[in-house]
Amino acid sequence: MRDSPRTIDWIDDAVVIIDQRDLPHTLRTMTLREVPELVAAIKSLAVRGAMALGVAGAMGVALAARRSAERGADLDEALGLAAAALAAARPTAVNLSWGISRALAARAGGPDGIVAEALRVRDEDIAANRSIGERGAAVLAGRSRPLTHCNAGALAGVEWGTALAVVRAMHEGRTLRHVYVCETRPLLQGARLTTWELARMAAPHSLIVDGAAASVILSGRADCVIVGADRIARNGDVANKVGTLAHALAAARAGIPFVVAAPESTIDAATPDGSAIQIEERDPAEVTHLAGHPLAADGTAALNLAFDVTPADLITAIVTERRVIVPAELAVPA
Amino acid sequence: MRDSPRTIDWIDDAVVIIDQRDLPHTLRTMTLREVPELVAAIKSLAVRGAMALGVAGAMGVALAARRSAERGADLDEALGLAAAALAAARPTAVNLSWGISRALAARAGGPDGIVAEALRVRDEDIAANRSIGERGAAVLAGRSRPLTHCNAGALAGVEWGTALAVVRAMHEGRTLRHVYVCETRPLLQGARLTTWELARMAAPHSLIVDGAAASVILSGRADCVIVGADRIARNGDVANKVGTLAHALAAARAGIPFVVAAPESTIDAATPDGSAIQIEERDPAEVTHLAGHPLAADGTAALNLAFDVTPADLITAIVTERRVIVPAELAVPA
Repeated sequence: MRDSPRTIDWIDDAVVIIDQRDLPHTLRTMTLREVPELVAAIKSLAVRGAMALGVAGAMGVALAARRSAERGADLDEALGLAAAALAAARPTAVNLSWGISRALAARAGGPDGIVAEALRVRDEDIAANRSIGERGAAVLAGRSRPLTHCNAGALAGVEWGTALAVVRAMHEGRTLRHVYVCETRPLLQGARLTTWELARMAAPHSLIVDGAAASVILSGRADCVIVGADRIARNGDVANKVGTLAHALAAARAGIPFVVAAPESTIDAATPDGSAIQIEERDPAEVTHLAGHPLAADGTAALNLAFDVTPADLITAIVTERRVIVPAELAVPA
Repeated sequence: MRDSPRTIDWIDDAVVIIDQRDLPHTLRTMTLREVPELVAAIKSLAVRGAMALGVAGAMGVALAARRSAERGADLDEALGLAAAALAAARPTAVNLSWGISRALAARAGGPDGIVAEALRVRDEDIAANRSIGERGAAVLAGRSRPLTHCNAGALAGVEWGTALAVVRAMHEGRTLRHVYVCETRPLLQGARLTTWELARMAAPHSLIVDGAAASVILSGRADCVIVGADRIARNGDVANKVGTLAHALAAARAGIPFVVAAPESTIDAATPDGSAIQIEERDPAEVTHLAGHPLAADGTAALNLAFDVTPADLITAIVTERRVIVPAELAVPA
């Protein structure tokens, strides 16, 4: 991605993001100098994806530190307000809180120390994603036709992503034949972002509606599933973009690997299992409307669950930057 | 639906249909007095759905009989031309040819006999759908929160439909609490048509994206699944709108009933099992575009499978106007 802007970066003491709402039609960056601007960008999904949100959390705290110093405001108070506002922007995203905590922990170093820590979070993300990609491709050795959901690509991280880092590593290793991309309703991150990234890496792919995934899997077209994660519980249950669970059920029926690619920071030791994960319900208008056009009759009620939870027993492996976790082994009592 | 126009009806010697292309935004009927008008309406999907097309076929022949008599034209020649034109409007719709044949077989009775036969086809459809609805509700006794996919409602038949006939019977029996409606990408028949029908019968419902169904099922929100069918193989495998299979996998995991509602005419004894059903691939533009708006980058390749096949072992029951079939029992060698 270094031929283009990073998904999120720190330039001239401001956060610079690719505005993902304009993709794939326009590649536009936004420069955010104030915490409320970044909070709004997170809420509106201009920046999204687990790892990018981790970096955003850290950089948001760094923004607060820089601006409060420039204004001569109280650092601790500014950091506290910023941390609360940032964490509330996407409550299900554990990486966001994790990134905030990383930057807050550096407050002894003052604004310079906090900014340096935010840059470390960014650089660690790039290195971790590369490691996830290589480890995931090794786990999927012998497979060549992955199906993926949503966008767990460079646009969800800084430079590489997770699930798409695995696809990229397969492609670089010349073992990739075809990628099936679920469009990922309601916000169509697969259609808009994943196909855009795959086209940029010249990886052959087909877009499908989410409902076609089970058929693509059970007909033998796809031979593995690779997805990211928003939160991983202690027992290996995985919260990810709504629609993931159905692909896991189909993969289990077909007997093909269902692999989750995520950084260690996605694992939430405080969450014993999936039932403890609160599933964000988003605006029903995301379901009833598309780009302002009504899809259903006026007044139609909709339930808009942002995530679902895939039980650990349906997951073949969780690949992180450090290890391969087999959830079935986690479930064994210690 | 008797508080409103029927999907297709015979009024003052003309065919009157609801133009489904305008739904849910406008309820408009079209009066078709000539066979070519009806052929155009079938081709453009202004009228659609297996059962409605059977009625349309019979009524198209009746139109030809009436008009030729009014004009003093040769009846046999008019019927032959009409039958050929109607059958060619949707060549794969087996019910359309069946309805045409039903009306042609009554030609000995002259125009009056042909019209009477077309009305019998209509009335038999209404009665069959009502029977499916009541039998389906009995099969689902104790369940109150069905999830459904696509539109197997009145708009696919004359007054009742199949899957939605079951929902209607539950509603009339005061056992219905809530319906979860899958939007059904790519053509959104659930969002456009099913929610409209449920609103008209004042049945509480929520629209969801197709990918949310597994979560709605496994979280306990939905307590049964009821869908229609496009073709049922001899072993009980069911071809239905793409997306159905994933709901069957989720229902099996949750241990809730997955019920298929369809007329006997949907069962194809010539098809031994689902592997013999050829799955129609439709225009990729249905996936990459919505109402003319691009959803993905220009040039994105898409695979658009119109149907999927749910294996018999995932189906709790198939309900027809005559019986309840348990596919697991079909699979036992005779």
